[in-house]
Amino acid sequence: MSSLFLRTLREDPADAEVPSHKLLVRAGYVRRVAPGVYSWLPLGLKVLRNIERVVREEMDAIGAQEIQFPALLPREPYEATGRWTEYGPNLFRLRDRKGNDYLLGPTHEELFTLAVKGEYSSYKDYPVILYQIQAKYRDEERPRAGILRGREFLMKDSYSFDLSDEGLAESYARHRAAYIKIFDRLGLRYVIVSATSGAMGGSASEEFLAESETGEDTFVRSPESDYAANVEAVVTPVPPAQPVADKPSAQVHHTPDTPTIESLVAFLNGAGLGREFAAADTLKNVLVKIRQPGSADWELLGVGVPGDREVDMKRLEASLAPAEVALLEEADFAANPFLVKGYIGPGSLTANGVRYLVDPRIVTGTAWVTGADKPDHHVVDLVAGRDFTPDGTIEAAEVRHGDPSPDGCGTLEAARGIEIGHIFQLGRKYADAFALDALGPDAKPVRITMGSYGIGVSRLVAAIAEQSHDEFGLVWPRSVAPFDVHVVIAGKNEEITAGGEQLVRELDAAGLRVLLDDRKVSPGVKFADAELLGVPTIVVVGRGLANGLVEVKDRATGERSEIPRATAVAHLTRECVTVF
Amino acid sequence: MSSLFLRTLREDPADAEVPSHKLLVRAGYVRRVAPGVYSWLPLGLKVLRNIERVVREEMDAIGAQEIQFPALLPREPYEATGRWTEYGPNLFRLRDRKGNDYLLGPTHEELFTLAVKGEYSSYKDYPVILYQIQAKYRDEERPRAGILRGREFLMKDSYSFDLSDEGLAESYARHRAAYIKIFDRLGLRYVIVSATSGAMGGSASEEFLAESETGEDTFVRSPESDYAANVEAVVTPVPPAQPVADKPSAQVHHTPDTPTIESLVAFLNGAGLGREFAAADTLKNVLVKIRQPGSADWELLGVGVPGDREVDMKRLEASLAPAEVALLEEADFAANPFLVKGYIGPGSLTANGVRYLVDPRIVTGTAWVTGADKPDHHVVDLVAGRDFTPDGTIEAAEVRHGDPSPDGCGTLEAARGIEIGHIFQLGRKYADAFALDALGPDAKPVRITMGSYGIGVSRLVAAIAEQSHDEFGLVWPRSVAPFDVHVVIAGKNEEITAGGEQLVRELDAAGLRVLLDDRKVSPGVKFADAELLGVPTIVVVGRGLANGLVEVKDRATGERSEIPRATAVAHLTRECVTVF
Repeated sequence: MSSLFLRTLREDPADAEVPSHKLLVRAGYVRRVAPGVYSWLPLGLKVLRNIERVVREEMDAIGAQEIQFPALLPREPYEATGRWTEYGPNLFRLRDRKGNDYLLGPTHEELFTLAVKGEYSSYKDYPVILYQIQAKYRDEERPRAGILRGREFLMKDSYSFDLSDEGLAESYARHRAAYIKIFDRLGLRYVIVSATSGAMGGSASEEFLAESETGEDTFVRSPESDYAANVEAVVTPVPPAQPVADKPSAQVHHTPDTPTIESLVAFLNGAGLGREFAAADTLKNVLVKIRQPGSADWELLGVGVPGDREVDMKRLEASLAPAEVALLEEADFAANPFLVKGYIGPGSLTANGVRYLVDPRIVTGTAWVTGADKPDHHVVDLVAGRDFTPDGTIEAAEVRHGDPSPDGCGTLEAARGIEIGHIFQLGRKYADAFALDALGPDAKPVRITMGSYGIGVSRLVAAIAEQSHDEFGLVWPRSVAPFDVHVVIAGKNEEITAGGEQLVRELDAAGLRVLLDDRKVSPGVKFADAELLGVPTIVVVGRGLANGLVEVKDRATGERSEIPRATAVAHLTRECVTVF
Repeated sequence: MSSLFLRTLREDPADAEVPSHKLLVRAGYVRRVAPGVYSWLPLGLKVLRNIERVVREEMDAIGAQEIQFPALLPREPYEATGRWTEYGPNLFRLRDRKGNDYLLGPTHEELFTLAVKGEYSSYKDYPVILYQIQAKYRDEERPRAGILRGREFLMKDSYSFDLSDEGLAESYARHRAAYIKIFDRLGLRYVIVSATSGAMGGSASEEFLAESETGEDTFVRSPESDYAANVEAVVTPVPPAQPVADKPSAQVHHTPDTPTIESLVAFLNGAGLGREFAAADTLKNVLVKIRQPGSADWELLGVGVPGDREVDMKRLEASLAPAEVALLEEADFAANPFLVKGYIGPGSLTANGVRYLVDPRIVTGTAWVTGADKPDHHVVDLVAGRDFTPDGTIEAAEVRHGDPSPDGCGTLEAARGIEIGHIFQLGRKYADAFALDALGPDAKPVRITMGSYGIGVSRLVAAIAEQSHDEFGLVWPRSVAPFDVHVVIAGKNEEITAGGEQLVRELDAAGLRVLLDDRKVSPGVKFADAELLGVPTIVVVGRGLANGLVEVKDRATGERSEIPRATAVAHLTRECVTVF
């Protein structure tokens, strides 16, 4: 440590909010260069490389082949798939000296697809899985939490290429198993949640979320089963349809001064209708407009949800992706005078050709209080399947604590996590864009189907730190720790110094990765730094050496024990060798 | 090979001119993505990683510490040193979503200097050497020869920080020794040449050039000594001054129709002057204009060289760096009517305050034929130190085959090489720019002095291929080869196939890295691919197996021998294990 390029800090950096960010900076693992752009100092780079090795080994173990694409990429392939535009301001774009457009790769679907098309032609070549571990670039609007959400970050991205849907399912399953091994080896607590696709296009998809209160991703889970899902991916259980026959007929009521669901319910309950209404009995119709990719035209869309729930814009957007969603402006209401703001009912939408999608709870036979399409009027007992027929259902309503779990076991609770992995059955989107076909055994072309699979390698450093620290500093799992043993020389006399150095030589020779604190500072400073740096085993060589003893401290449990110097190397080799 | 992501090509790529480019593409090591931007397929990536490992081991061995900076860098540090501007169109510049300027790092002097300033403060912290192995970006005007001169490339760059010039010399010497070890381990033939600095600013500098006819760098060497230098760095031996007293006085002659040195010499030799003139007796004055960095103003400069030599613009520019050099335009002549085009002599330059620098051969007492500053007139016997006094000397004249070697041993010959390493005593340029000081033992600040040291890691793949190939393909040195052994199954019967697979299992278990050609193609195709891929040892398992024999071929020498299958693993382990 007297020559290590490292200075620890006593104070948290001013811009740091989450523990991993604070500790990784204080312990000298990373340094900020620009917003969301960090450099890796020696200890940080060691941890990063350890993680990289675990990822590489498990990818190799499923037969994935490592290649490496450039980060600087020409525009054309991304133009062909529409992502040059779709990525919007998240893409770093630049021009070369000749004025040609380039980008810094956010992910490499296009390039991998073109690479396979370039090399392979026959069905005999497939399946194949390719991967790379490489710097990625995304111009995040709000980079945050140090390396947790950066703009330059290290990612493992892999892609599978199969001849059939069954093949894709198999490649997907192999990745899923590899990811489980990787995250287990890294000592992470994580859940696998059903996910939606984001900007990638495609279908089956799961995310690996490291459980953490500081995570950006909200997910729900049922404590009574292994169900877990992104909020966007929660599928609302559909109640059974109800008979229509026994329902009273719909009646329009004058309902003045009821601008909110709450005031409407209060009004109805005071109107002497002979029964009690709740917010859940009302049907709230929210109007948005959507635009399909590549289209210039906006289209109106009505979304009906039970009045006790808000529309969750992230769920709505996920349901409508890749279409763009926007709220209506005054001009839109002016252009569509049949929309009576605050009193929109299914009737005017259907009559005017506006597509109308409803929450899955709004099944045939359910009766609703909703807008009567004229100011200050609502209709009561408007029955689905009798008085109105939606164009379909949509997952847009908020998911709440206590909602029934979609798997039928128990109720949902919310939790937060850090996305550390994402596996995704892309399907044929990219193969279609580039006509990636294999010549089949019958000499006919077979369109290839793809999967894409990502692990945020640099983010994992932060995710592990987020889960594994205490008030004194970092606490690395052995598999990622920058060193196996941290030897502290506690004492100034020559015997102690020489004894510590001798121990380090022996540990080195035994194959352990050892950090020696040989600085001329007080033992207190050394102990504090050892806690901060987080090497799993701390060995203190101090006064006890005169009696043939050294102290061994387990960083994670805090347990201390004195062991004989004579057997220390054997003891530490047994305890501390990292089996990667 | 039946599942390896690899397709070899029979034809050279259309855009390839040099052997390494042709073979690396044909053998499926790299693929072009955009001009000067390449991807690495599995075999290429293995070679690249092997080189990386050698570089890393030798850097670690001199106590250098590995860190990693981002490639995406903010403008400000490069603005502070002027390089944001100086790099001109070679820099990839971009803006983020907020409109802030960024660049893709071409080298990282600024960031390393700031990093050390951020962590270190005391003289006790020094010296320190830091390095990274990382993608670099330069928007080359003419990317060429595949990965030999790319726009995205992998580089090891290191930086030393010392308290004194002696310390810098020591850090420089350690790098020099490490580079020699690295290039020796990689099996390269190379020379170390004195070099100039280019855009880096600073002083002592050497380049490591891999000898290659396809190299971009011309250097000169004396076969009679170990002298070698970049043409830009050749220092002209200065002849002794001559007595002025015995020289005839200068005479102006009417010399019509003598626009060239050749016609001037012919005219004089026919003019009955009683002696013979040669081109080397004439003094050619070339006018250029120069602009200092950060200045808007151009300044005239006269450069005088013996008439038998051209001005070498690269040498002139190197001598004047970091100033910018340009040729005069008509407007410049119009603005300076004392410049009589074709007849410029020292007189008008000195009289009009134009700085005038001459070749070192133009010493006091030498007599010259030169322009007389009026049309159609030259002056004969204009004597340096008597009739004109230059403002100094400049290395600008071309260096020629047969010129005396600057070290006094023999004469120079020209050769070509590929720059694979560059070591450079930067001095205090960057420390000055960022006020990088250490607090000395007397509590006074000590300005740090720096060295910068680069190795073109990805370029090395091409440089090695350039030196190590034959008409059939690549011939990798063991230290970088993607595999130790290439086993070819030559035959379709089950015994041969099973025998080959069993041999590979045993070699794998013995720790060898083995490539097995198990494809269902003819032995001829397999042999051709084995030659093309260039694994050092090829083992053929064929009909001989029935007699207990396999064939071993040395890729480099072409030697073949049959060895007993029973001892094959022991034999190959002995021959082929790569000691990295």
